[in-house]
Amino acid sequence: MTPLHALDPARALALPPPGAGPAGTLDILAGLFILLLAAKGGEEVFRRLRQPGVIGELAGGFVVGPYALSLVVPGETATVLSEIGVVILLFTVGLEIKTDELLQVGRPALVTAVLGVVFPIAAGAAYALAVGEPPATAAFVGLALAATSIGITSRVLAELGVLQRRFARIIVGAAVIDDVLALILIGIVSGAAEGDLGLATLVLVVGALGFVGLGFALARRARGLRREVFTWPLFADTPLVPVFLVMLGLAILSAFIGLAAIIGAFVAGLIVAETEAQDEIEHDIKPLASIITPFFFAVTGAQLNVAALADPPLAIAALVLAALGIATKVLAGVVGGRGIGRWSALAVGIGMAPRGEVGIVVVTLGLSLGLLAPSLFSAVLVAVILTTVVAPLLLNWVIPRAAAEADLAGPESAGPTADAG
Amino acid sequence: MTPLHALDPARALALPPPGAGPAGTLDILAGLFILLLAAKGGEEVFRRLRQPGVIGELAGGFVVGPYALSLVVPGETATVLSEIGVVILLFTVGLEIKTDELLQVGRPALVTAVLGVVFPIAAGAAYALAVGEPPATAAFVGLALAATSIGITSRVLAELGVLQRRFARIIVGAAVIDDVLALILIGIVSGAAEGDLGLATLVLVVGALGFVGLGFALARRARGLRREVFTWPLFADTPLVPVFLVMLGLAILSAFIGLAAIIGAFVAGLIVAETEAQDEIEHDIKPLASIITPFFFAVTGAQLNVAALADPPLAIAALVLAALGIATKVLAGVVGGRGIGRWSALAVGIGMAPRGEVGIVVVTLGLSLGLLAPSLFSAVLVAVILTTVVAPLLLNWVIPRAAAEADLAGPESAGPTADAG
Repeated sequence: MTPLHALDPARALALPPPGAGPAGTLDILAGLFILLLAAKGGEEVFRRLRQPGVIGELAGGFVVGPYALSLVVPGETATVLSEIGVVILLFTVGLEIKTDELLQVGRPALVTAVLGVVFPIAAGAAYALAVGEPPATAAFVGLALAATSIGITSRVLAELGVLQRRFARIIVGAAVIDDVLALILIGIVSGAAEGDLGLATLVLVVGALGFVGLGFALARRARGLRREVFTWPLFADTPLVPVFLVMLGLAILSAFIGLAAIIGAFVAGLIVAETEAQDEIEHDIKPLASIITPFFFAVTGAQLNVAALADPPLAIAALVLAALGIATKVLAGVVGGRGIGRWSALAVGIGMAPRGEVGIVVVTLGLSLGLLAPSLFSAVLVAVILTTVVAPLLLNWVIPRAAAEADLAGPESAGPTADAG
Repeated sequence: MTPLHALDPARALALPPPGAGPAGTLDILAGLFILLLAAKGGEEVFRRLRQPGVIGELAGGFVVGPYALSLVVPGETATVLSEIGVVILLFTVGLEIKTDELLQVGRPALVTAVLGVVFPIAAGAAYALAVGEPPATAAFVGLALAATSIGITSRVLAELGVLQRRFARIIVGAAVIDDVLALILIGIVSGAAEGDLGLATLVLVVGALGFVGLGFALARRARGLRREVFTWPLFADTPLVPVFLVMLGLAILSAFIGLAAIIGAFVAGLIVAETEAQDEIEHDIKPLASIITPFFFAVTGAQLNVAALADPPLAIAALVLAALGIATKVLAGVVGGRGIGRWSALAVGIGMAPRGEVGIVVVTLGLSLGLLAPSLFSAVLVAVILTTVVAPLLLNWVIPRAAAEADLAGPESAGPTADAG
């Protein structure tokens, strides 16, 4: 008897795969199913172990990927979905941020953010140079340690119910500035890394600053923009489809002028955040984010070459880089947050420690540029993951102490303007 | 000065395109952006012309596709997205249907549905045989005219505010049975079309009926199933991700046992429709459907070879098939709906006329199997589109008359059980 699965599966599908090459549409769908299932299964395991779900999604992708079980080798479609996933992710980060919050954050947030970028870059780069890496690689190692993940930070603060505390507002403000600095630095460093530090790179920097500045100005002008700006087309029952087109369009434009696609997506988020459509979009983007974003983490995890970590020097590098990454952020927070109380300043520093997705984006970019060898990519990726895993544990320890300290200091510590003091 | 877009765009993206082949990730993203923009632009134009938006999405894909402006040639990723789009579409159709509605529909709905499948298949196949096509092709031409689009039908009924009228309930009930019959027939005919009418096809038919029957039984058992069945994983804040995995998993399983992937998606919809998660899923699937489903129509439209219609015999074929398609459904409705009033029976028949997405799925399947030559594919596709465009116009004429007739006949015409009379 002919086994049914031996029949040509292509005939069972509605569409022929004109550009599918060797793999048919059904094989690709099965691969995507396995990636999504693995990411969610990994998230489940890690959340039951009280670890961040994002680490589980990476682990799930790794387990089914080419360096472990080899059930899936991510191809064109998985790669494009992962790119759309990270575009949606950075869009949602921008969507959480009002430009007023960027302007109102005061000296502690600014100092924390700037030092929180300078210290890790200096420490990471110094370490990489010390072990003999070239300057461009060293810059990427430092940059990977620079960017705080506003997503992970704000999720931990919200879970602990301290988002209105002064130290929490400093963390959020600093993380926002930090994100913007890191996103611009990603563009500049990747330009410089091409070895072209002349006119083209200057144009790139001007273009990057101009794009972000113009986006920021647009976001200011977009304040209170009515929902109808997005829903005038008859096809737009809700603002989602027009906003999605703006997001994807700015991401592609950003990539065409030489920036990362995610910068355009972040700017699109900043713009929409100011409009009346913000709440509705934040709600409507969630189903898309929950299905598509896991592909980013799963595909990234599938690239993790663990064999490289059997090499003791690299395992040591990962641990050293993770320790440097946490220590430099804590130092920046303690300096930036001085005067607000000992525990609160420590909470600011630890709150800046988790790197999460932006750090992963940087190391992946470094790998794609050929600046990070696969083994070093894996070491830095593990370091980034370690900062993300350790920070929530430390926050659970320091935040209750900071909250108690703030309660003793009086009601101003819960005030709405963290930059007033 | 180096033009910025001449820089390697791959470095601007977060991920390398390991399996992207000749086209880079940025090119693919730009192609997807153009397809989505074209689909939505086309929908906008057609809705402003008071035509169904779905026709506009097809037209938009055609305009930017390889047979017109050639801005986009859909490749692997667009094809896979279009497949996921039609899977989501048929899932949402199943999601609107309670199995009770399938069981409670009485004789008029059943007679209308069966005749509404038999008449168009007989007429379409007879025409195709008469003009010299082989039997397998004739079967596909007939099948393309058989399936009523529950989506378009129910949208028109809802817009006119007559969903609780008796004739409307007969249309909905008949359209549901019609859909299930057509979905099973798609599996059987595509199996038979492979030329293998022996044991394998018998197993396919049994497998198809078994899969649908088992799905139906599961849906009955799923009645009132608590939301927690889907939300017990920690990663599932809402039922969406688990349900999406069930949908994609059943679609892939369905394709592996030889049925169309959309049958599995439809069955998944039927199952979820019975659970407590139905409302929430119907709400959460909308953002995904609104972004991904347009790729199905745009990619399909991009396959429309209009040059074939410059051939007068083919243009005539399209018009004849459209006329046959409408006339046979009207006849089925008038026979099936006899005794409920002249205008109401006519409304039932015309309400069954729009073919929409299932007809498009069938002709696309026929094309992919090599049973419909590209020119005949285009003729049948135009015929399917004509039934969809003409039906809402006719419904706007007949439904007010049917409603007035029903008002004269007394209150029972608005009763909850259409099969009681």
